[in-house]
Amino acid sequence: MVRKIGMVFTLVLTLGLVFNTTVYSEYDPLPSWNNTDTKKKIIDFVNDVTSQSSPNFVSELERFAVFDNDGTLWAEKPAYFQQAFLLHRIDESAEENPELKNRQPFKAALTRDYAYLKKIDKKLLNKLYLMTHTGMSQKEFEQKVKIFLRTAKHPTLKRRYTELVYQPMLELMDYLRDNQFKVYICSGGGTDFIRSFSYEVYKVPKENVIGTTFQYEYKEGKNGGYIYRKQDFVEPINLKGGKPVNIQRRIGTSPIFTFGNSNGDISMMRFAAIGNRPYLNLTLSHDDEKREFKYDQGAKVMQEISGKGNWLTVSMKKDFKVVFPFQK
Amino acid sequence: MVRKIGMVFTLVLTLGLVFNTTVYSEYDPLPSWNNTDTKKKIIDFVNDVTSQSSPNFVSELERFAVFDNDGTLWAEKPAYFQQAFLLHRIDESAEENPELKNRQPFKAALTRDYAYLKKIDKKLLNKLYLMTHTGMSQKEFEQKVKIFLRTAKHPTLKRRYTELVYQPMLELMDYLRDNQFKVYICSGGGTDFIRSFSYEVYKVPKENVIGTTFQYEYKEGKNGGYIYRKQDFVEPINLKGGKPVNIQRRIGTSPIFTFGNSNGDISMMRFAAIGNRPYLNLTLSHDDEKREFKYDQGAKVMQEISGKGNWLTVSMKKDFKVVFPFQK
Repeated sequence: MVRKIGMVFTLVLTLGLVFNTTVYSEYDPLPSWNNTDTKKKIIDFVNDVTSQSSPNFVSELERFAVFDNDGTLWAEKPAYFQQAFLLHRIDESAEENPELKNRQPFKAALTRDYAYLKKIDKKLLNKLYLMTHTGMSQKEFEQKVKIFLRTAKHPTLKRRYTELVYQPMLELMDYLRDNQFKVYICSGGGTDFIRSFSYEVYKVPKENVIGTTFQYEYKEGKNGGYIYRKQDFVEPINLKGGKPVNIQRRIGTSPIFTFGNSNGDISMMRFAAIGNRPYLNLTLSHDDEKREFKYDQGAKVMQEISGKGNWLTVSMKKDFKVVFPFQK
Repeated sequence: MVRKIGMVFTLVLTLGLVFNTTVYSEYDPLPSWNNTDTKKKIIDFVNDVTSQSSPNFVSELERFAVFDNDGTLWAEKPAYFQQAFLLHRIDESAEENPELKNRQPFKAALTRDYAYLKKIDKKLLNKLYLMTHTGMSQKEFEQKVKIFLRTAKHPTLKRRYTELVYQPMLELMDYLRDNQFKVYICSGGGTDFIRSFSYEVYKVPKENVIGTTFQYEYKEGKNGGYIYRKQDFVEPINLKGGKPVNIQRRIGTSPIFTFGNSNGDISMMRFAAIGNRPYLNLTLSHDDEKREFKYDQGAKVMQEISGKGNWLTVSMKKDFKVVFPFQK
């Protein structure tokens, strides 16, 4: 019996090796990326930090990859997805409180006066987020987002927002996970908002979403305890220098792989760069007017920094074979 | 060729089934637990929520288990481990500022006047934590904890603190992870303090530690950016109603399995109980004067609640075959 088992294992092992060799040599983990130098550098980095014989090997425990969301994982023009949700919530609020209809900035929001809305300063914008995203139970908020997600469409591309994710980024996240990276999202957007679709769209589970977070309060109700959303932010808001702070708070270390697209991601990348570990910082350049959008406002400083050493610029035009999944 | 492969697979499959059956019927995932009703209920719960055919099946995505630390995973008497670190840090501070030596509460701390220290109110205690745990870079703090961990010993049991973990709890965490639970620690202790040993001691990676957190600031220095520890807490402190708030903030939902030992864990358990999912709330009763300690201060309300329905009391005396790993 022992001999028979030995034979079987030898046979299976041999077949396994043959199949594996064949499979790996033809396997392209990033089929929607063009075969550019960028793609080669990404694969080289992953091979380097995951190979135990490499001096740059990083243990699975510390193999964190962090992606910005808007403009990095999906389209952010003409407005962030969450801004569309904000407008939707203002519509709902105006139904409950009709006196809002003649007051600014609500009037501009209700009539989709984008020229006016663009000029709103950050403080007022944050107030609008607080007004529309808090003052209710966590369950109630999640329900509101769920309903919105089902129906909302992008104003110019006429697709559901969750379809406007970049196919090459989905593949890159899969590829990193296959190599035991722990893939996180780190966005200025609301943590709970992103959590409502992060697994379905990106395979990123709720606990791997780092975003701007509202204060909660635990309340004891008739049917047990529940989470109530207080009209306040957890500081810092997850932008610029807030990103490394919230990353450290959540994962307890610096990431070794980051992907962003704007000046708001520079601090997060500098944080990766000081970790005393190998790292790769990628910046997506929106240079593809034909397939997506062409813009660099809010990204100029980043683009000046990127492209040197371990800071790589990814060109949507040159490096992406496909942009959206429906173009495959 | 196809036939041969088919034969091999059939053989392997058959052998696999035979081996599996044998292995599973003799396999005890919790060997350091006595074969009591408690152990049976834990195993029944895990089988129930992980069996796809069960009406109580819970997807892996939502299979969160949350453990309190002090008094649940390891000994907390005569003082929390972190209190020992606090005293150590006060010693260090007094070396730098000798004028502290004659001032209370430093004098009491330096002379280990436990009678005095026990009477210190929470506000003053928090001030002491802020004084000794912040005002330095994250790296510097982590280094201080590391050195302390290497040398510190429990005052009466004369063992390194990290040896004073409960063997049955290590097995329980392994058992849950083997069943695709995501195992978290949720402690009133400092997040960074616990992170410094959580993987080594509990196999809980840094990102799965929820504790009391100090505010950070991201600073740009000469050699790149770094995290600075500010003299402030991130609210809420992770005790009582703060626990469900911080759990929701970190994992985006309520856990289905909790383990605590004091009144400070009641809110976290109520939070599990309202999740509209099956749940199990366990409370460790310190009733074993011989092998550990016997006490119930700070746990009386909890003990009154526990023992009914899905709230189970675990008796150290009756349910633990072994307490500490070195007793195996």
